[in-house]
Amino acid sequence: MNDNLTLMTDLYQLTMMQGYFEANMHNKKAVFDMFYRKNPSNNGYAIACGLEQVVDYIKNIKFDKESIDYLKSLNIFKDDFLTYLESFKFTGDIYAIPEGTVVFPGEPLVRVKSSIMEAQFIETTILNIINHQSLIATKAARVSWAAQGDVVMEFGLRRAQGPDAGVYGARAAVIGGCNSTSNVLAGKMFNVPIAGTHAHSWIMSFKDELTAFRTYANIFPDRCILLVDTYDTLKSGVPNAIKVFNEMKEKGIHLKNYGIRLDSGDLAYISEKARIMLDEAGFEDANITASSDLDENIISSLKQQGTKINVWGVGTNLITSSDCPAFGGVYKLCAEEVDGEMLPKIKLSENPDKVTNPGVKKIVRLYDKATNKIKADLICLDDEVIDEKEDLTIFHPINTWKTMTLKANEYYTKELLQPVFINGECVFEKRDTMEIKAYCEKQKESLWNEHKRLINPHILPVDLSLKLYNLKKEMIDNIRKNK
Amino acid sequence: MNDNLTLMTDLYQLTMMQGYFEANMHNKKAVFDMFYRKNPSNNGYAIACGLEQVVDYIKNIKFDKESIDYLKSLNIFKDDFLTYLESFKFTGDIYAIPEGTVVFPGEPLVRVKSSIMEAQFIETTILNIINHQSLIATKAARVSWAAQGDVVMEFGLRRAQGPDAGVYGARAAVIGGCNSTSNVLAGKMFNVPIAGTHAHSWIMSFKDELTAFRTYANIFPDRCILLVDTYDTLKSGVPNAIKVFNEMKEKGIHLKNYGIRLDSGDLAYISEKARIMLDEAGFEDANITASSDLDENIISSLKQQGTKINVWGVGTNLITSSDCPAFGGVYKLCAEEVDGEMLPKIKLSENPDKVTNPGVKKIVRLYDKATNKIKADLICLDDEVIDEKEDLTIFHPINTWKTMTLKANEYYTKELLQPVFINGECVFEKRDTMEIKAYCEKQKESLWNEHKRLINPHILPVDLSLKLYNLKKEMIDNIRKNK
Repeated sequence: MNDNLTLMTDLYQLTMMQGYFEANMHNKKAVFDMFYRKNPSNNGYAIACGLEQVVDYIKNIKFDKESIDYLKSLNIFKDDFLTYLESFKFTGDIYAIPEGTVVFPGEPLVRVKSSIMEAQFIETTILNIINHQSLIATKAARVSWAAQGDVVMEFGLRRAQGPDAGVYGARAAVIGGCNSTSNVLAGKMFNVPIAGTHAHSWIMSFKDELTAFRTYANIFPDRCILLVDTYDTLKSGVPNAIKVFNEMKEKGIHLKNYGIRLDSGDLAYISEKARIMLDEAGFEDANITASSDLDENIISSLKQQGTKINVWGVGTNLITSSDCPAFGGVYKLCAEEVDGEMLPKIKLSENPDKVTNPGVKKIVRLYDKATNKIKADLICLDDEVIDEKEDLTIFHPINTWKTMTLKANEYYTKELLQPVFINGECVFEKRDTMEIKAYCEKQKESLWNEHKRLINPHILPVDLSLKLYNLKKEMIDNIRKNK
Repeated sequence: MNDNLTLMTDLYQLTMMQGYFEANMHNKKAVFDMFYRKNPSNNGYAIACGLEQVVDYIKNIKFDKESIDYLKSLNIFKDDFLTYLESFKFTGDIYAIPEGTVVFPGEPLVRVKSSIMEAQFIETTILNIINHQSLIATKAARVSWAAQGDVVMEFGLRRAQGPDAGVYGARAAVIGGCNSTSNVLAGKMFNVPIAGTHAHSWIMSFKDELTAFRTYANIFPDRCILLVDTYDTLKSGVPNAIKVFNEMKEKGIHLKNYGIRLDSGDLAYISEKARIMLDEAGFEDANITASSDLDENIISSLKQQGTKINVWGVGTNLITSSDCPAFGGVYKLCAEEVDGEMLPKIKLSENPDKVTNPGVKKIVRLYDKATNKIKADLICLDDEVIDEKEDLTIFHPINTWKTMTLKANEYYTKELLQPVFINGECVFEKRDTMEIKAYCEKQKESLWNEHKRLINPHILPVDLSLKLYNLKKEMIDNIRKNK
């Protein structure tokens, strides 16, 4: 990622800014919500991810001379606006849901309150970063759910959509559920575990497979995972690996973190046969790693067949979220200042799911006291207070007859949006990536398995407070009346 | 993209390097081919793209102190190897197919000859960059083919898989066929046209749509594309746009680059009605732009219905190549030095398509002299010479009875692989991105429409020379015999 992403925005943000500037509306305050409408891969939830990079981006916003010169060369912008940009920075408030949090469609992941110019300007980059990392973190959560506690390694760098997709995708994958990545730069930047052994070319560059294995084992006795499918997995690869493991044992080496890797063929059949061969040779603790166009569905299918694979290297399908390669987050105006007062705004659509929620909002998560599982999320107006000592009845925002009552003192609440910038001042505290990962694991525990299953998960209710519901209804009615 | 991507590699490249180093094999020479096996999106060809960024990466390889310290902290690498890395750089030869060239499965896009250490080290980053940009360039070629000469704008930055995917994706999209991008940073970095107007939030931040349109038209009379679907496209948006265009005309403004943008609803129906309204008001030259989850199939379908849309903004589906988000390029050993001699290597596979082509190879493109269209590509050994003054019979590498004879003097040849690094010296000449784009347009003209259609395209023959075919057959037979 470039240090300075200032110009990484859509041209229309800059033309609109010049428009606001010339219309003398640039100090007008507005509030925008970044939210998404549908969980990727039909998952039951998503994992919020990417905020740390958004914060870095916003802190570093700076139109340097080169950028101003470029904009000038376009003959679109006026000099007074370009002069204004020279000292442009973000001076507003941002609230956001912490990274690693389990989130649902319709919930503002990021809420920006600032001059309309500033809020508009940062839209594209916020969307780019949060959309990407939340997508990959969610996919990683699916893959690691399928692996049922087995180790999952992220292996996709060579198929990622460019360098950043590889590096920040690895970060998101670890946060969402992977144990490690093959990406060395990601390991260094985020202090996360890295993994990997050797390729077919290693085997092919020795006179035979046994020599290649033996050489590798001599050099890396502590991390000896041998790739066994270059010539013939069961007739050559596994027997040669066993031979080398025996030689190591004879030398008195204490074998640990060792085993074989399969990268082709029918993984269920081959892993079963290989397990028997390894066990019979006394290597019951040898790992069987697999990597071969895996995804959560193939892992689930192999698990169902009782495969003996216990370590998974997942590449292309994870790092690109191949079945659903875009998160679809949007950024919508929800309030603006008119004559000094902040008024709610709404955007209608033919499609009821696309009608926005008006006003400055917050999200209150409702937990069951007995189980610490999430009962529901409630999108409220920012000034609402929920008293845990009283019964709370919530209802579905479209099918309003669907209600749920949480009994007084049997639930507790937690607000999801946390301050990130206040009056342009960054109040965000960086956390270690592994700490975010641990937090994400806890977050996933706050869901029942019904919400986490890969296919047709149970949908957790995300309702509107009565006050927000009434405001939305009233605004829709008003627009219809004036039509 | 970081200036220094040195550590952006898979850990196993570094462990293998340490292995070669300790086994004293690090000066052994080897040749690797980067190629792919299947055109993305079932297209009839792909567009090679990304080489310029690969060259920048290789030129900048440098293990700085921070990187060495990090590697040391992993407790995997030995001190003598880390000392060696401090002065590591690429000293070999690279040949590659120029960016913007039409390419086919099985053809080496990049050929690396160097010490096995060096060749291995650069694998991951070469794959990452070429896979990404070739994917997006190919998708852009499909989209622009569907648009049949209409203007196509790349609009996907907010949905790209991270910053680099947005920026380098925009570059690849322009090379592959788009006329412009919304991405300002890409515009600056690659000197390509940028495009864009305003969003729904612009309309919503004024007291009404007419005021919003009027303000925009006053500020940008030269680029007045009005987004007409915020409230009601045909009842409010288009009539208000016409009102504003009339006001501009009355003021004596010469209208150019103007029109409307549709972002929702049934684009075929609405564009037709809007066209009639604009024409009746005397604005026959107003453009109708559309953007709304478009891809090559939707554009084709709208075109088939005779839509009046003539400018296309394509976002998510282009910038992620959503139906096929990975290119699938691989990097395989094809020759290595044994006792001072470069010997061909082959990797077998159960799947005949996955058996590699051995030896140091080149690609000869065979053109028909009468039409300047490509007849076939021939993968040859590097020392082969094809005499255009003689008849040339080529044959399908699997169904060998499928032959084609090119008559002497009726065809001409062109070699695709061009030198990029020689003995570590960069001999690559950067071209302007728009020049690469123009070259790519010419390249596409060297294909018949049969090869370019979106569905079930005619497959252009990519054959092996008789010499290469015989070498491959002999090597396979030898391996089978020794089994």
